[in-house]
Order: sequence, then C-alpha cells, then structure tokens
Amino acid sequence: MFRQVVVYQWAGGVSPEAKQGFRDALDDLREIPELLAMTCGDDAGYFEDNFDFVVVADFADFDAARRYVAHPLHQTYVRDHASLVIGQRIIVQHDWPISSS
Amino acid sequence: MFRQVVVYQWAGGVSPEAKQGFRDALDDLREIPELLAMTCGDDAGYFEDNFDFVVVADFADFDAARRYVAHPLHQTYVRDHASLVIGQRIIVQHDWPISSS
Repeated sequence: MFRQVVVYQWAGGVSPEAKQGFRDALDDLREIPELLAMTCGDDAGYFEDNFDFVVVADFADFDAARRYVAHPLHQTYVRDHASLVIGQRIIVQHDWPISSS
Repeated sequence: MFRQVVVYQWAGGVSPEAKQGFRDALDDLREIPELLAMTCGDDAGYFEDNFDFVVVADFADFDAARRYVAHPLHQTYVRDHASLVIGQRIIVQHDWPISSS
C-alpha cells in the first residue's frame, strides 16, 4: 500500500461555502478507482497551531496515486476548489504493509 | 474515532542513528492501550517539498488521545527522541466515523 497524507491550511478570507465546495469535490474523488480508502476532516480545534484540514488517502502504489492525480475528477478538484481555498499544504507519502496498521 | 495526524520535518544535522531511535521509540508507543491503530513512515522521496515523516494515530476520542500523551512511554518518546530530532511538526486532529473510511 502507498499512503499519501496531506495537511492543509485554508487561504485567508475563504467563505464557508467555498470550503464546503472543496469538501464536496474531495468526496467526489471516491469515484476514482485508484483511491482505495480516504479519511479526511476539519481540525477539531483543540490546539491553535494545528493546520485546518487533513486527507489520508491510500493507493496500491505510487503509480496508482499518479493516475488518481491525473484523473479528470481530480483535475476539477484542484482547478475549481483546492487552488482557490488552500493557502498552504504539506505532503508526506510512504509505503506501508497493511499488516502493520 | 479520533484521528491525529502529525507530519514531521527532521531537524538539521540529525544522525541516522538518532532518527532510528526516534522510529523505535515511536514503535514502542503501540503498547499504550489508548493507541488503537498507528501507521507511520518516512517520506518516499518523490517530491522535494514533502515533509520527512508522518504518523497517523487513532484513538477512541480526544480524552483517550490526551491519556496517550500523558503516558510515561510517550513522555520518554518526546524527551529522549522527538524533541532532539524533530525540527518542525504540524498536527491535524479530527473525529471520523469508522464507516466512512
């Protein structure tokens, strides 16, 4: 398995509606066959320094993750939503054996 | 469920042995009963801007995550390892229903 973790910080001045559009477009990505599992969510707000949103997405391997990024639904997600509402994002990607979870 | 995601960047000049000590101490945290599941790993190195390491840890709720942080094994992990090898870390924490994964 190949796990991709992305933490996001909203850009300044983004409306609640635009954030919801981002969340909805992200949820639509579940239709992409290469995306085997995804959890995501808004930070719970316990600590002020936390980032705002996180996505944990699992793929068979790096090549599958690349096909996911190239998928038209993902292109729409980036162009119409992520690029407009995200101020900063940080990624970590790693292989992991399922048995270790 | 309460998911805590932490992305890490190594501090400068940290030895491979110190990094491995950090990984080993992190693995020891699996003994803490409140930690229901954990995946972690070094970034695969495909993208230069990625951070270096990530931990995805699951707890029953926020209070369980707090007890995990207060556990002596976690205190040792922070004092003897994380505080010495980590330059920057960013956290996102969120509730999620297991059925949505």
